[in-house]
Amino acid sequence: MATIVLCKTARTATRQCAGAHFKSLACSSGPLSSAHSVPCTLLPGAGWFSRGTGVRLMSYGTTGKSATSRIGRRALALGGAAVVSAAVAGLVANASHFQRAEMATRVVPVPEVREQEGDILERCRGFMSPPVTDVNVLQRKKDEMRTRMEMLIMETQAEFCKALEEVDGGKFKVDRWDRSEGGGGISCVMQDGKVFEKAGVNVSVVFGNLTEEAARQMRSRGKVLKGKDGKLPFVAMGVSSVIHPKNPHIPTVHFNYRYFEVEEEDGSKQWWFGGGTDLTPVYINKEDALHFHKTLKDACDKHHSQHYPNFKEWCDRYFYIRHRGETRGIGGIFFDDLDSPSQEEVFSFVKSCARTVVPCYLPIVYKHLNDSFTQEEKDWQQVRRGRYVEFNLVYDRGVKFGLATPGSRIESILMSLPLTARWEYMHEPVKGTREAEMLDVLRNPKEWV
Amino acid sequence: MATIVLCKTARTATRQCAGAHFKSLACSSGPLSSAHSVPCTLLPGAGWFSRGTGVRLMSYGTTGKSATSRIGRRALALGGAAVVSAAVAGLVANASHFQRAEMATRVVPVPEVREQEGDILERCRGFMSPPVTDVNVLQRKKDEMRTRMEMLIMETQAEFCKALEEVDGGKFKVDRWDRSEGGGGISCVMQDGKVFEKAGVNVSVVFGNLTEEAARQMRSRGKVLKGKDGKLPFVAMGVSSVIHPKNPHIPTVHFNYRYFEVEEEDGSKQWWFGGGTDLTPVYINKEDALHFHKTLKDACDKHHSQHYPNFKEWCDRYFYIRHRGETRGIGGIFFDDLDSPSQEEVFSFVKSCARTVVPCYLPIVYKHLNDSFTQEEKDWQQVRRGRYVEFNLVYDRGVKFGLATPGSRIESILMSLPLTARWEYMHEPVKGTREAEMLDVLRNPKEWV
Repeated sequence: MATIVLCKTARTATRQCAGAHFKSLACSSGPLSSAHSVPCTLLPGAGWFSRGTGVRLMSYGTTGKSATSRIGRRALALGGAAVVSAAVAGLVANASHFQRAEMATRVVPVPEVREQEGDILERCRGFMSPPVTDVNVLQRKKDEMRTRMEMLIMETQAEFCKALEEVDGGKFKVDRWDRSEGGGGISCVMQDGKVFEKAGVNVSVVFGNLTEEAARQMRSRGKVLKGKDGKLPFVAMGVSSVIHPKNPHIPTVHFNYRYFEVEEEDGSKQWWFGGGTDLTPVYINKEDALHFHKTLKDACDKHHSQHYPNFKEWCDRYFYIRHRGETRGIGGIFFDDLDSPSQEEVFSFVKSCARTVVPCYLPIVYKHLNDSFTQEEKDWQQVRRGRYVEFNLVYDRGVKFGLATPGSRIESILMSLPLTARWEYMHEPVKGTREAEMLDVLRNPKEWV
Repeated sequence: MATIVLCKTARTATRQCAGAHFKSLACSSGPLSSAHSVPCTLLPGAGWFSRGTGVRLMSYGTTGKSATSRIGRRALALGGAAVVSAAVAGLVANASHFQRAEMATRVVPVPEVREQEGDILERCRGFMSPPVTDVNVLQRKKDEMRTRMEMLIMETQAEFCKALEEVDGGKFKVDRWDRSEGGGGISCVMQDGKVFEKAGVNVSVVFGNLTEEAARQMRSRGKVLKGKDGKLPFVAMGVSSVIHPKNPHIPTVHFNYRYFEVEEEDGSKQWWFGGGTDLTPVYINKEDALHFHKTLKDACDKHHSQHYPNFKEWCDRYFYIRHRGETRGIGGIFFDDLDSPSQEEVFSFVKSCARTVVPCYLPIVYKHLNDSFTQEEKDWQQVRRGRYVEFNLVYDRGVKFGLATPGSRIESILMSLPLTARWEYMHEPVKGTREAEMLDVLRNPKEWV
């Protein structure tokens, strides 16, 4: 079995694996390694992961369907921009893929065991910066989901940044920014480090009022959202990250976990979660791919046996560069619009995912830290970086949404772009090479686990 | 007066100005230089340029208005994709700019003098490749506009490629490609040359059937286009080019000239032209900017005194990176949907524009051929290249249209991207530097002539 044992790879690295936090992660993995076996220094009280994998709460039929219709409609809206019906046809064809994800699996709800989340002030000490929301407000409203999610995304940012700083030796530049319309964010960026060409880990917590039309577009589900005087208070928050290493044998990773709330006229709240983690290698390494997907699958399996297969497929469909006929990378998981069976259970699932980020990725970084590479391998990495830029600027809904929204912090949105990229006319790898092997996987997504 | 005299700059270059064709251009320019004083080896018979600048045929009010409504509607369609109404508001605000271009100037039509266009077969000898349409068909239909335009775009490609090959010393790779739905193209690309990092000059001639909806989106004007059984035969053709030099003191240039025909149920044809030429320097050089704009203005002034001011403004609005609040470069001219006062006159104007490409750009290349540069200047060029990529992938209608159209030749569409580009987080030039001077111009477009 090719599961990567973290301690071993950490030991083989020349850089010293010093920090207690990462060491604890590095030593806890084994053949069945997952985020859940990790003693978490940031979120004390680990009772939550004792919930059995037999617990099944999600109603896939509903969730899948609504997500499908939303995306289908968004794709149509994009198609409308694309001048000829041929384009529309292309997008609709793409959208129809989403229907395949609706593998309904109804399961019996069981009583939930809620994890102890600890003292707000104490937990904030480990963050890269004070949270966006005032700590007093967080303490006062510590049981509200928006507080619990803000704490989770701040913790995820801190945990990941510290793990990256430890392997790189560099420090993240931390920028706090305000959004005049409400809220703000914390952008952590490390540029031109020893290991990482560009690493960005961003938290944002924004709120304000949406028009009914905007709210409908954010989440249609066929429902008409009714606001007070046409306005709907909303809050949107998330943590997102893209890491571009220098060495072409260390893959790029991306993750994003987010939460939305919209309040209707009668005071009732609509809420949903979205997110995912995916890997973009320059060369195929089967062991890495298996480790990455297996770690995600283990996290998913704790919550629903259909999560991993469905969200793995959704990821392959979402991170697809249509005009190239290639996926962006070797995938991972991706989901959106998740709001059942209960807020507690979905949050618990999102928490499991957020906590797999470090154990998914860091072992791969350590493993390849000292791999040598040729100029040809570096050039191929740069060509793949070009494709990454193409996906992010042409298709990524988050980037498109951000660029089109007045008052967005552009630098935080575009920190996902690599430091450098390359476009060669008619670049096509020679058959039988490792570059051709990579392309073949991107053109024909594989099952890794 | 800072008009660049081509002979002088050619002489100061170390590379020998050898080719008879370019030399003839190089020596014909003076303080009032323009494409029209150039003896054209490719289009013999130069009687056409004797038409006085007093001849004014365009009905700006109509043209401007229809262009406005089309673009406004497209912007709205794009806005629909952009999830929140805030985004829509941003795009509509942008679209409303277009209304300012409607400076109506009605003028009296005069009889037209048509230029001798010479023998088809003879003219084809100078091309980079045989034309897309069979030469026998072109000969048989030599008086039709689609033939005359195809000959013009093939000539423009050849003239520009040869001028670039002469200055670089390298050779263009010529690819002919077919479009299964009808038509094809000729892509000429020079990559990693001595002077040019990436130079692409592309011709495409495509035809087939549009649905009524697609035809309406291509050109709405409030008209319902009626096709036979819902289908409308169309032809779209154009020449487009982007040249990215290595030396940061030589600017990037882009041009595109195109022609559309759609046939309605009753056999009547709707047709229109579009195009433009614009410059994207890395550093401001006022003499270059004046030469470039003055050459374009001279070409425009031969046809209508409002062409240059209107199309210059349109260019600044079109090549605008909204999320950065910057234009892509220092502009030039841009127009679309031009169909009055007559096909002959619009074609004559487009021909004038196409013929200014070499005299607009080549003198600037020769002038800076041996300029030395620092690593900092190269890095700034790479950052500007990143912005070029952002514009092309996020806003350029041609690229968006192409990427969204099944059967497009992606490599020809994306050959406009630079070989290399760079994205630095929070890059902001220091006040008082030449980099800051460049940004200031991009944030506040100037009148150069």
